[in-house]
Amino acid sequence: MESSTEGLVGQLVEIVGSDWVKTDDVELQYYGKDWTNVFHSDPIAIVLPSSIEDVQAIVEVAMDNQVALVPSGGRTGLSGGAVAEQHEIVVAFDRMNKILNFDAVDRQVICQPGVITEQLQQFADDNDLFYPVDFSSSGSSQLGGNVATNAGGIKVIRYGMTRNWILGMKVITGTGEILDLNRGLTKNATGYDFRHLFIGSEGTLGLIVELTVALCPKPKDPKVLLLGVEQLTDTMEVLKAFRNKLELTAFEFFSDKAMSHVIGEKGLQRPFESICSFYALIEFENSAEQDLANAMEQFEYCLEKGWIVDGTISQSRAQAENLWRLREDISESIAKFSPYKNDISVKVSKVPESLEELDDLVTQVYPEFEIIWFGHIGDGNVHLNILKPEQLEIGKFYESCSKISEWVFDLVKKYGGSISAEHGIGMLKKPFLQYSRSPAELEYMKAIKRVFDPHNIMNPGKLIDV
Amino acid sequence: MESSTEGLVGQLVEIVGSDWVKTDDVELQYYGKDWTNVFHSDPIAIVLPSSIEDVQAIVEVAMDNQVALVPSGGRTGLSGGAVAEQHEIVVAFDRMNKILNFDAVDRQVICQPGVITEQLQQFADDNDLFYPVDFSSSGSSQLGGNVATNAGGIKVIRYGMTRNWILGMKVITGTGEILDLNRGLTKNATGYDFRHLFIGSEGTLGLIVELTVALCPKPKDPKVLLLGVEQLTDTMEVLKAFRNKLELTAFEFFSDKAMSHVIGEKGLQRPFESICSFYALIEFENSAEQDLANAMEQFEYCLEKGWIVDGTISQSRAQAENLWRLREDISESIAKFSPYKNDISVKVSKVPESLEELDDLVTQVYPEFEIIWFGHIGDGNVHLNILKPEQLEIGKFYESCSKISEWVFDLVKKYGGSISAEHGIGMLKKPFLQYSRSPAELEYMKAIKRVFDPHNIMNPGKLIDV
Repeated sequence: MESSTEGLVGQLVEIVGSDWVKTDDVELQYYGKDWTNVFHSDPIAIVLPSSIEDVQAIVEVAMDNQVALVPSGGRTGLSGGAVAEQHEIVVAFDRMNKILNFDAVDRQVICQPGVITEQLQQFADDNDLFYPVDFSSSGSSQLGGNVATNAGGIKVIRYGMTRNWILGMKVITGTGEILDLNRGLTKNATGYDFRHLFIGSEGTLGLIVELTVALCPKPKDPKVLLLGVEQLTDTMEVLKAFRNKLELTAFEFFSDKAMSHVIGEKGLQRPFESICSFYALIEFENSAEQDLANAMEQFEYCLEKGWIVDGTISQSRAQAENLWRLREDISESIAKFSPYKNDISVKVSKVPESLEELDDLVTQVYPEFEIIWFGHIGDGNVHLNILKPEQLEIGKFYESCSKISEWVFDLVKKYGGSISAEHGIGMLKKPFLQYSRSPAELEYMKAIKRVFDPHNIMNPGKLIDV
Repeated sequence: MESSTEGLVGQLVEIVGSDWVKTDDVELQYYGKDWTNVFHSDPIAIVLPSSIEDVQAIVEVAMDNQVALVPSGGRTGLSGGAVAEQHEIVVAFDRMNKILNFDAVDRQVICQPGVITEQLQQFADDNDLFYPVDFSSSGSSQLGGNVATNAGGIKVIRYGMTRNWILGMKVITGTGEILDLNRGLTKNATGYDFRHLFIGSEGTLGLIVELTVALCPKPKDPKVLLLGVEQLTDTMEVLKAFRNKLELTAFEFFSDKAMSHVIGEKGLQRPFESICSFYALIEFENSAEQDLANAMEQFEYCLEKGWIVDGTISQSRAQAENLWRLREDISESIAKFSPYKNDISVKVSKVPESLEELDDLVTQVYPEFEIIWFGHIGDGNVHLNILKPEQLEIGKFYESCSKISEWVFDLVKKYGGSISAEHGIGMLKKPFLQYSRSPAELEYMKAIKRVFDPHNIMNPGKLIDV
């Protein structure tokens, strides 16, 4: 350890105690990166604060020593937003994992940023309420990270993104100031709403140290339909038919290749005999008797129209959960193939045309790679995963995918879409940000970063370079 | 007209033609102020652009001549946000009032900023959909203004503020640049979401020139309950009881004094015989048979508990509309008394305690004034209106109310509330902004304004002084 590093570590130890500053190599590696798994991890130290005051003191140390901070939650990110590549201090929020307050009248929970998504979902359930933001990594992801990336997931068509559920936020900016934003108010027309600027800012403007989160009533009796579809574009006809008659809570899709990986990996059964190119998973709230009748009617209608070829509906909560696993376990089942993940979105109306063009493109440019399609097609968001052939070196694989990305993003741009629907930009998508944001927007982003983080110590090198 | 003014007017005429630049005194007065009615109106000229290009050219003229711009929509604002007091050019959006595009799959409408709220509501209805942001001035207010103040209104507990419905926005910043923000995407995790920064910014960062607005399914059979309540704090018990059993679309309240003004002014009938201190108006969606049964059950329960003393339920859409008029016509019915409007909010859980304290305060400090209470109590927002005694000069009346405001705002601050729930800050609330925003937040607001409006030509003097 260099003497300057020693001094810095000493200052951190003074704040949190020696147990909560980590400098051994295993821990530096563990805390220094996220699920992206393609970047090098090289932090100076890991510090685990237990309070807002600790975080504020850590920011002071960072300013004094001109060293950068990388916030670290559940590290389930997929764009390298929580990777410490440049000798930063990693601020890990694992100890700030408490639910501080709950008010049943306001239906609001005040949480520390290290609360795990699933922990909040369980807490809501225990109080006969519901936290509706849900995704595959909810067992590990932390709320601070969810907010920093405006996490989406599987129920966005009904409940929206993480943004919709954040009614208040305390942050420490790059100058060590604490801002107490919106304080849980539903209505507050008192100037610029910085809360929304910090949501999705990937730690580049400051550190989130407390959150006020809204809960909602539990959905009644969620029913799941799984439908077999031959033509990708027909899934959109199915969406329109069901959406007109029912309030949908989810509308997901995946390819047969995607499902085959889950079935193989997890030992699950196929949902029905027919093997189809694609599957649509629909969830709706069965709140009145006519809901189920409406669903069956639309099912028959879609069969008649030839949009679907087979299907099944859950008869119990357990069956619903099993059908969901066919979709939710895809990411995990293909993880061993080090997939290159494209997380793109367009307006729902543009999905059929853009997906067809995209399908043509990738089969043409990736002939040697296996392509796995799945996603939240009801909100225009598709995950296009390219699996790495076993013999190909990961660096080379990523390099070749990255080149092809430009063609994919050109197409996304043509359709006015987003090159990152819910995974954020981090380091992985930074070179491509101009496909979704104009030069003027990028300049304003830099200027805003300089306002909140004039010393460039808040997760520098992520999202944009100032 | 001075020669410098003449030159300026000439440049504006070159952009929009001579019919659309107004300089005669009647029009300067008409376009130069909003409903606040307490500020002096003194613009140089009114210009009515017809296109985004016109607006961009007007901003260029403003930069070249170092003259400020005041955006003007329906001018229904209540905080002086659209008043031109300082020889500004008023940019009125009346001609940019077209619905440009509608996509039924996306359920999105692309609107020019001058579209009237009611026009969009009607358009949605014609397409069997619903635009749920609604308030008393929806017949005059324009969408651009709604977005600039993040308008709320009567259905916030179910549908949220204007913010929730804006999926895209084109703006011209203070340097004349056009930003095309979010482009109607549901999911777009590509850095700072400037759309949310412009929502509620009161024209101080730039001019809104196009909006992409989301629509939703129509509510089924809305039912309205009107309940008589003796104790203000009991309304919150009523809210809890009903909210636990039904999805409420509105929960409003008003005092008997407020209702008496409406009945006197509009020649309406009392809803039932009992005269109560307060009334709660509840709207819910009667989507299943058990909903009505649940409502009746809660009605009985609240009667038994003594929280309500009388009540009625609408049997038809016409009856529902009549009950709504008792609430919606309050503002108009008391307008002739030049009311001083406090528009405050706290968390719902803090409503009983804070309202009681507020009631004590105002009866003590305003003994000679008539106090009218009403508001959206289901989301914590109360409108406290002080009526001007006939013989009192308006300037003196406002001066005396303004002094008392500091005590009211002290109390709001103590409860962590907002000094402007949905009316914005403009000029009227500017001296009090520090009751809801910290010194650090105010400094960041100024810095952000300087980023988007470095020449300070975008509605200067509103919200904050840079």
